[in-house]
Amino acid sequence: MHVVVNAAMSADGKLSSRRREQIAISGEEDFARVDRLRADSDAVVVGVGTVLADDPSLTVKDERLCERRLANGRSKHPARVVVDSKARTPSDAVVLDDAASTFVCVGEVAPVDERMDLAAHAELVTAGEERVDLLRAFAALESAGLERIMVEGGGELIFSLFEVGLVDELKVFVGPKLIGGREAPTLADGDGFVAEFPTLTLESLERLDDGALLTWSAGGSSTDT
Amino acid sequence: MHVVVNAAMSADGKLSSRRREQIAISGEEDFARVDRLRADSDAVVVGVGTVLADDPSLTVKDERLCERRLANGRSKHPARVVVDSKARTPSDAVVLDDAASTFVCVGEVAPVDERMDLAAHAELVTAGEERVDLLRAFAALESAGLERIMVEGGGELIFSLFEVGLVDELKVFVGPKLIGGREAPTLADGDGFVAEFPTLTLESLERLDDGALLTWSAGGSSTDT
Repeated sequence: MHVVVNAAMSADGKLSSRRREQIAISGEEDFARVDRLRADSDAVVVGVGTVLADDPSLTVKDERLCERRLANGRSKHPARVVVDSKARTPSDAVVLDDAASTFVCVGEVAPVDERMDLAAHAELVTAGEERVDLLRAFAALESAGLERIMVEGGGELIFSLFEVGLVDELKVFVGPKLIGGREAPTLADGDGFVAEFPTLTLESLERLDDGALLTWSAGGSSTDT
Repeated sequence: MHVVVNAAMSADGKLSSRRREQIAISGEEDFARVDRLRADSDAVVVGVGTVLADDPSLTVKDERLCERRLANGRSKHPARVVVDSKARTPSDAVVLDDAASTFVCVGEVAPVDERMDLAAHAELVTAGEERVDLLRAFAALESAGLERIMVEGGGELIFSLFEVGLVDELKVFVGPKLIGGREAPTLADGDGFVAEFPTLTLESLERLDDGALLTWSAGGSSTDT
């Protein structure tokens, strides 16, 4: 399994403002790059916070990329995966529509009614108690044939994935806006590391749109002080 | 007056962990670059939070750079400026030592006793009530002959400077660590922008140490949605 985290942040590391509204951070070039990355993936993963805030479709937008997937004997779109410990994904969320197959990863804590509602639209992966056990959930995804995983946020999920050492690559578009805000969501939220910090390797650096694309390799579970 | 904000942040936009301990984000090349930038400046500005957390000297470390300043008829080190609304800078802070001249910008709200203590070690600039009025304070610095200003953080001061449109240039070293933490200090904290965001222009992008140096121009007070 290969896990790529992809995100666009402001020049000061924010994914959005404190209001958690979607902000256009990148431009057309980055949009096309993200679409290609989706088309190359077996699954696109987001946290439930992203579903609740943005209601994304997570599908491939460029029809030619879809056709290429189909010509290669793949599904038109990659599978969609929501990490959703308490099963809060609304049953009318776009991510549950018929455009692509969807997995929702829940914890044992998720209410049975909500789980049954979701099970009508998606394949449920139950792993962990209060919070989704990401190692077990991702192992289940791998068993389902999902090898190339793209994670699109948000910051809580991204931090959790680094915490358990599941990230192989981090692609960050740094855009030309200053958002600010001590309560604004950042690329990696959660409790944060305090003593040992994952050390990344800068694989490439390029201008894209009006910002910069930084590609870091993360070496899975390796950490460093 | 030309105001350059310089900071080192992790790959996810943090200046430090939630414990606010100093973390080595950059390396020797960036250290030398920052030292040259200091040596080229008339004043180096920090917020009181940075003084309380790190007790920095803010002096130029490379003696050859100091000698060049002296040869050009300048002081050995740039002036140091602390933005400190409530006069919380401890009287034994390194920034108040004899190595260089120091300005402390306080608000009217600062207790008289603390102001008198600070006045023994530094030149006081009183501007604003509860919080330092940065436009007035920086105008006072300019009147004192300080034209080339370098701001070294932290995130609260940086946000406030963007808020009043005082930033001309933002230099960010993005380092190869993942810090995480929804309460960790970021490059720009404060309340954050919510509707109109300062739009930056990426002037240059280069590899430095194991990370990347992004130089943005900020165009002073211009904003954009």
